[in-house]
Amino acid sequence: MNDIIPTTKSTLTPLAVEVTRGAVVESRHRASCAVVDSAGNLVQSWGDVDQAVYPRSAIKAIQALPLVETGAAEAYGLGDGEIALACSSHGGEPFHVATVEAWLVRIGLTEADFECGAHLPAHGPSSEALLRHDHAVTQIHNNCSGKHMGFLTTACHAGEPTKGYIHPDHPVQQRISAVIAALSGVDLARVPVAVDGCGIPTLALQLKGLATAMARFADPASQPDGRGAAMTRIHQAIAARPEMVAGTGRLCTAIIRETGGAVLAKTGAEGVFAAALPGLGLGLAIKVDDGAGRASEVAVTNILKHLGAIDDAVAARLADFMVAPLKNIVGRRIGDVRPAATWPQ
Amino acid sequence: MNDIIPTTKSTLTPLAVEVTRGAVVESRHRASCAVVDSAGNLVQSWGDVDQAVYPRSAIKAIQALPLVETGAAEAYGLGDGEIALACSSHGGEPFHVATVEAWLVRIGLTEADFECGAHLPAHGPSSEALLRHDHAVTQIHNNCSGKHMGFLTTACHAGEPTKGYIHPDHPVQQRISAVIAALSGVDLARVPVAVDGCGIPTLALQLKGLATAMARFADPASQPDGRGAAMTRIHQAIAARPEMVAGTGRLCTAIIRETGGAVLAKTGAEGVFAAALPGLGLGLAIKVDDGAGRASEVAVTNILKHLGAIDDAVAARLADFMVAPLKNIVGRRIGDVRPAATWPQ
Repeated sequence: MNDIIPTTKSTLTPLAVEVTRGAVVESRHRASCAVVDSAGNLVQSWGDVDQAVYPRSAIKAIQALPLVETGAAEAYGLGDGEIALACSSHGGEPFHVATVEAWLVRIGLTEADFECGAHLPAHGPSSEALLRHDHAVTQIHNNCSGKHMGFLTTACHAGEPTKGYIHPDHPVQQRISAVIAALSGVDLARVPVAVDGCGIPTLALQLKGLATAMARFADPASQPDGRGAAMTRIHQAIAARPEMVAGTGRLCTAIIRETGGAVLAKTGAEGVFAAALPGLGLGLAIKVDDGAGRASEVAVTNILKHLGAIDDAVAARLADFMVAPLKNIVGRRIGDVRPAATWPQ
Repeated sequence: MNDIIPTTKSTLTPLAVEVTRGAVVESRHRASCAVVDSAGNLVQSWGDVDQAVYPRSAIKAIQALPLVETGAAEAYGLGDGEIALACSSHGGEPFHVATVEAWLVRIGLTEADFECGAHLPAHGPSSEALLRHDHAVTQIHNNCSGKHMGFLTTACHAGEPTKGYIHPDHPVQQRISAVIAALSGVDLARVPVAVDGCGIPTLALQLKGLATAMARFADPASQPDGRGAAMTRIHQAIAARPEMVAGTGRLCTAIIRETGGAVLAKTGAEGVFAAALPGLGLGLAIKVDDGAGRASEVAVTNILKHLGAIDDAVAARLADFMVAPLKNIVGRRIGDVRPAATWPQ
């Protein structure tokens, strides 16, 4: 399919997403996007792909590589569900929670060993049900608890203390930094480090560096044996259990499911989206200037379509993410989030 | 205080608000702002003040004028609490709910007469408490229920059918359109009309038109007797009961309270903020391009400071809205929402 990818073209014109209400564009978003191949070549770009971007949760599949590479996943007999959950920003739906609970038992730890903090399930109905039953909100409900399970499992397998596993100098985070450096080609000694929502380090990669890491994830054959095999294992798990990566009604789950795993797309906070396209041997990364998730969702689906990574049939099944209807409180459609007329054709 | 206002200056450079995480600016917002006097002169501006903007909830104090002008508020013996609530986007806190419930009894209607739809209280703890007690979510919890009470009360007083009061051709909405036309100076026959979140019409005024309406609200002496008196009555009610306009921890309430009612500020969805500055005889309107409320909040407090509408002491008490700390799930401060270095001094 590589022949449908345009030749290298770099432009400073960002992608434009607009929010309509009636006949008026009420709000406007701008996004940058880098598309890179596994050799690290910038294949296509819009906006500023040199900007420093915190990948946030968009890089979780890569943060899960040590879980498989160290042999921890195999040693603890983790299945597709657990491995997919290690790459997730899950909604805290009952099946997510049950999987984390059973996994905790398997590694001999408890909810108190998490260092991610507690918040209500991101999935609205699950959150409401939890409160109506007057249940406690725990760290298991944190959308990052699957990722943290991967961290804890790796530490247990390596015989490392689990306490402090979120700190940059803990071996868990050191292994992850090494993986990110190798895949992104970015010299991490020179990038700013900040604290993510769940307490772990987040490294400000250039947008094209994030896309490069995703491209290499999309091409396991380009990697040394152990790493390539771990990528393939994670790819299989995500493709088999897309509901674990996000959940009901969520775009990441829908893209993975509707493409049969040919596109591994993952959202991150502050308007980041990243995707590995194994079929095309490409990676992409998107950053919305203002951090709006509603814009990154519309941007990623329409760029995937533009790249030929999703066809007309898949686009039709993702219609509500290509042009996202906005409804008011009584359910009346009052506008849309849609690509602007300047969208690349 | 008028002498501190710069002379008329129009610029296309928008205001810039940035979101930091660690040492990096993670996201960026741009806003336009119009500052107008009650004669309709543009006193100062940033960005595009000719753009069509739906005022959304930022215009609620003006939408409440017919409630007072028609004599409905007096006929039903409404106090400061009810009148302030008619201008509110309230949090659905218990005192908001109780006020609406008692007011419904006073006009002989029930919750079923609302046409705004039901949603969970915007105030998080109130929402959680409602669910933990397994109570029903009703239209009374809708953040616009106070405004709708104003509409219903006016219809009852005028002997009009309450059914259909949200439709553009109902006398309730016709009266409001006439008020908006008179105060904004905008020919409403030529502006797009869309549907607001709560089902009523929202009219796409130019940003400077919205600011003009606020400026006239700030200068009741410029208005005919009945209208000027209604403005004064609403101003008094809002100043007396700022907690009714928004609620606990909310910026609108804080600005009104900390300025003793010298600044009447009101947020609207999609990054709109409007304010009437009676002390300065000015009105202002802000629109964030991308619709982000976090940016409109930082923009309005810093513009009020720039204009001299709030002094250093008030700014200090509003510190967390001038530069808004961002905390992660475990409460660690990881960044800020702040004016960019280019902010007007």
